[in-house]
Amino acid sequence: MVFNPFACIWERADFAVKDGYVIGLGDYRGRRRCDLGGARVVPGLIDAHVHIESSLLTPAEYARLVLAHGTTTVIADPHEIANVCGAPGIEYILSEAARTPLDILVMLPSCVPATPLDAGGAVLTAGDLARFRGREGIIGLAEVMNVPGVLAGDPDIRAKMDLFEVVDGHAPLLSGKELNAYIYAGIQSDHECTTLAEAREKLLRGMYIMIREGSTEQNLRDLLPLVDACTAARCCFATDDRHADMLAREGHIDDCIRKAVSGGLEVEQALRMATLSAADRFGLNDRGAIAPGRLADFCVIDDSDRFSVVRTFKRGVEVIDAGYHPPDCPAAPLRVRMPGPGDLRITGQGEARVIGIMPGQIVTRDLRCRVDGATIPDIDRDILKVVVTDRYRSGGSGIGLVRGFGLQEGAIAGSVSHDSHNIVAVGADDGDIIRAITGVVRLGGGLAAVSGDGVTTLPLECAGLMSALPYEEVVDRLEALLEHARRLGAVENPFMYLSFLALTVIPELRVTERGVFDARIFADVPLFCE
Amino acid sequence: MVFNPFACIWERADFAVKDGYVIGLGDYRGRRRCDLGGARVVPGLIDAHVHIESSLLTPAEYARLVLAHGTTTVIADPHEIANVCGAPGIEYILSEAARTPLDILVMLPSCVPATPLDAGGAVLTAGDLARFRGREGIIGLAEVMNVPGVLAGDPDIRAKMDLFEVVDGHAPLLSGKELNAYIYAGIQSDHECTTLAEAREKLLRGMYIMIREGSTEQNLRDLLPLVDACTAARCCFATDDRHADMLAREGHIDDCIRKAVSGGLEVEQALRMATLSAADRFGLNDRGAIAPGRLADFCVIDDSDRFSVVRTFKRGVEVIDAGYHPPDCPAAPLRVRMPGPGDLRITGQGEARVIGIMPGQIVTRDLRCRVDGATIPDIDRDILKVVVTDRYRSGGSGIGLVRGFGLQEGAIAGSVSHDSHNIVAVGADDGDIIRAITGVVRLGGGLAAVSGDGVTTLPLECAGLMSALPYEEVVDRLEALLEHARRLGAVENPFMYLSFLALTVIPELRVTERGVFDARIFADVPLFCE
Repeated sequence: MVFNPFACIWERADFAVKDGYVIGLGDYRGRRRCDLGGARVVPGLIDAHVHIESSLLTPAEYARLVLAHGTTTVIADPHEIANVCGAPGIEYILSEAARTPLDILVMLPSCVPATPLDAGGAVLTAGDLARFRGREGIIGLAEVMNVPGVLAGDPDIRAKMDLFEVVDGHAPLLSGKELNAYIYAGIQSDHECTTLAEAREKLLRGMYIMIREGSTEQNLRDLLPLVDACTAARCCFATDDRHADMLAREGHIDDCIRKAVSGGLEVEQALRMATLSAADRFGLNDRGAIAPGRLADFCVIDDSDRFSVVRTFKRGVEVIDAGYHPPDCPAAPLRVRMPGPGDLRITGQGEARVIGIMPGQIVTRDLRCRVDGATIPDIDRDILKVVVTDRYRSGGSGIGLVRGFGLQEGAIAGSVSHDSHNIVAVGADDGDIIRAITGVVRLGGGLAAVSGDGVTTLPLECAGLMSALPYEEVVDRLEALLEHARRLGAVENPFMYLSFLALTVIPELRVTERGVFDARIFADVPLFCE
Repeated sequence: MVFNPFACIWERADFAVKDGYVIGLGDYRGRRRCDLGGARVVPGLIDAHVHIESSLLTPAEYARLVLAHGTTTVIADPHEIANVCGAPGIEYILSEAARTPLDILVMLPSCVPATPLDAGGAVLTAGDLARFRGREGIIGLAEVMNVPGVLAGDPDIRAKMDLFEVVDGHAPLLSGKELNAYIYAGIQSDHECTTLAEAREKLLRGMYIMIREGSTEQNLRDLLPLVDACTAARCCFATDDRHADMLAREGHIDDCIRKAVSGGLEVEQALRMATLSAADRFGLNDRGAIAPGRLADFCVIDDSDRFSVVRTFKRGVEVIDAGYHPPDCPAAPLRVRMPGPGDLRITGQGEARVIGIMPGQIVTRDLRCRVDGATIPDIDRDILKVVVTDRYRSGGSGIGLVRGFGLQEGAIAGSVSHDSHNIVAVGADDGDIIRAITGVVRLGGGLAAVSGDGVTTLPLECAGLMSALPYEEVVDRLEALLEHARRLGAVENPFMYLSFLALTVIPELRVTERGVFDARIFADVPLFCE
């Protein structure tokens, strides 16, 4: 039974493949014959928006993992490595992509740095992006996060958008006339919807809606009621940021399909989203269905009620895991002036801006709490210190407050810190925060959990973002890290939340190496309210 | 109430327009305010495939007529005038298109002549077509009719297909492996389906299905069961060939919507087909919905149950009929050697190939009838003579037999005769056939009905295809012609059937200036079977 996304039905059919493409359905004779035993076969799954770096894996290891889950194409935005390494980071992804059967199609990062105020490892101008245009595997401009720039007609972002036909959006909570203007400017999709009302408005105004289900950005359950037989053509799935452990334990787009089905969606609608709708959104007429002239990318589903991929074929060839090969790795720029105890001290008291993290969300809340600097960390109220240390220019450290991590002791730190990827730490103890940051720097980039009973780490030697280890080891070490954090009392997935604390393009409140940042007005603000 | 094709729903909303584009939905203030009184508003309707020449109107008059029916965009294939005049014929359509508010977007004719055997007024090579690439208003390659050429990998047709991303198909009755191969070659749509099974197979293999409803090619009722909430995204409407009288009496795409609704389709699905689906098929992201960044093309529907367009807006401006302006007209090449009585004589007897016309269809049947040449026309059996006279090179006349016209006396003739547009005549009397052909030549191109009680004509001085008259007069004269033909006993719409008798790319049997032609094997065949 072959799933046909053009009619959202299953067909009993054989199909023939030549040179990686489907030539037809029907009774063909070929040199080789593959008997799938009447199993259900579906077109290769497509992730409509992902940062591979967020898996903590190199592209090759990422591909090994997701291919086994039926994914044959990912639309990747190498935004993280571009922020750290600039254009050579994009070249790295392209060259690694060429070494795996997974099709890694690249949307060029539109906002490096994320805002004019961010000082990461690189600045990519429209001219820098133009040099990638027309290259194989480059298909458009990735999430345009500089919403104020778009609305103000900023010439730099306009010039970038004018380079490409396909332009993805990123506009959390944008609504009404501002949303209209953002779409009018030429932005065609959004993957940042967190409520059904938000997603519905964006869909009705013409945006493709990418329903995201990452490690901590989990919007599927809330957005699922958006999808029906009509809107399935305008919706697809994306993981955006999904750590290796979740990929290994729960899966990839197959996991999105399972969750959608268990949420009440017909599997045919979920499959349409994961195949043809995603291909259509990017104008990829060469995939998204098992049909003549399209890539012979498909996977075989087991016969349980659960949607479980048992075999994956790419360009007509079954994907057999070739195992781990040590990757090339761009080094992590690490020019760090270590913060001392004095740098971490908070003086003053009054109503302070506290970042409230939200379970399963990437947005944060601007909590206002009465705080005395001398009593921070306040374990009882779960108000902890967050420190962002510049890693490019031996600059300073910015200090903020956060609620929701739940640490009772110790600290965690990492060099994954969207979008500039400075070093970020949260802790219940200043000494442990410094030890954790030191640990990350010693690793040459990585993640660390620190407490009285020791230090647990995952090295991320590839630009401070990705591990050079095999994915199985990354999963093991990540789980050890998470176990350590759990012992400290941490929320689930603390490193994913940690990595977003400095993300200046998502409302409401963030911290940078300069201090507290209000993402709604794109401006630095003081820790204590005036 | 505004129809939203992204979700197939109606929204209660105001919208704002600037410089011809929708800037947003919501509560805007503008220089001018247009109160539509809460009426239903739908995006401008799109005809996915039409030969404007087949209306017998010039583009400007055609536009006057269809704009009033809510059509704001037509995807036009100037195949007829290109066969008569070559590239200058395409230029004519483009320059006339620039003079009307209707968006006439041109798919370039892929098969001029229709087959290598056809000798019309022009040959368009890939090189000729390449010169149009990138011109404003040129959006792809029109119906690739040379199916054997595609299947055989003919380099000329391949070169034409390689010029464009968007390639329309034309593959009546094609099925199975041949259909697979045709789609594999890169052809993305079909408007020639006549049965539900044919349309379903083509849709399942990845083709967009254009459900056609022309003057005599009426497929809507048969194909309607194909459309559901899933497939509506892959289906659209086309009129292909619709005479001015039908446009005036029944309408255009609005008529397709009415017929679909009365056939049981939800109006929302029909509207999705007529707007967003048609725009999507051609990658036209600038229309198909009333949404930010899209053209402010829309129409207002009255509040009856009938889907009736009462006002049309193009680029935000209400279309007010500016009336008739005498058009430029390319002259009709007419180098005709008039057939004499001896040219029309059929000698011999035996089993003959007789074209069987099929009510409401463009396909014909290859009837085999025992015939004595001396007794033709055989009014009792309705076996009449059809004559095709070369109009380009003072060449000869080909003779065939046809059943289904029903003429009891007299003859009809015309210079509209797909695709070479020689002069074609059918009659119950040789003398009247010659008089009818003479009448057409004297008009400088046109249609004529001839019998004992006189001659009725419609001049088609624009390339022998289109009338320079206002559409109202064309409709009147066409109706007078049809009334005359009706008095002679003719089938409904005889001039449309007449115009397809020489169409060598549609099965089964045709006639050319050389004689009988079998469109299934693309070869001349003798009138009498061996």
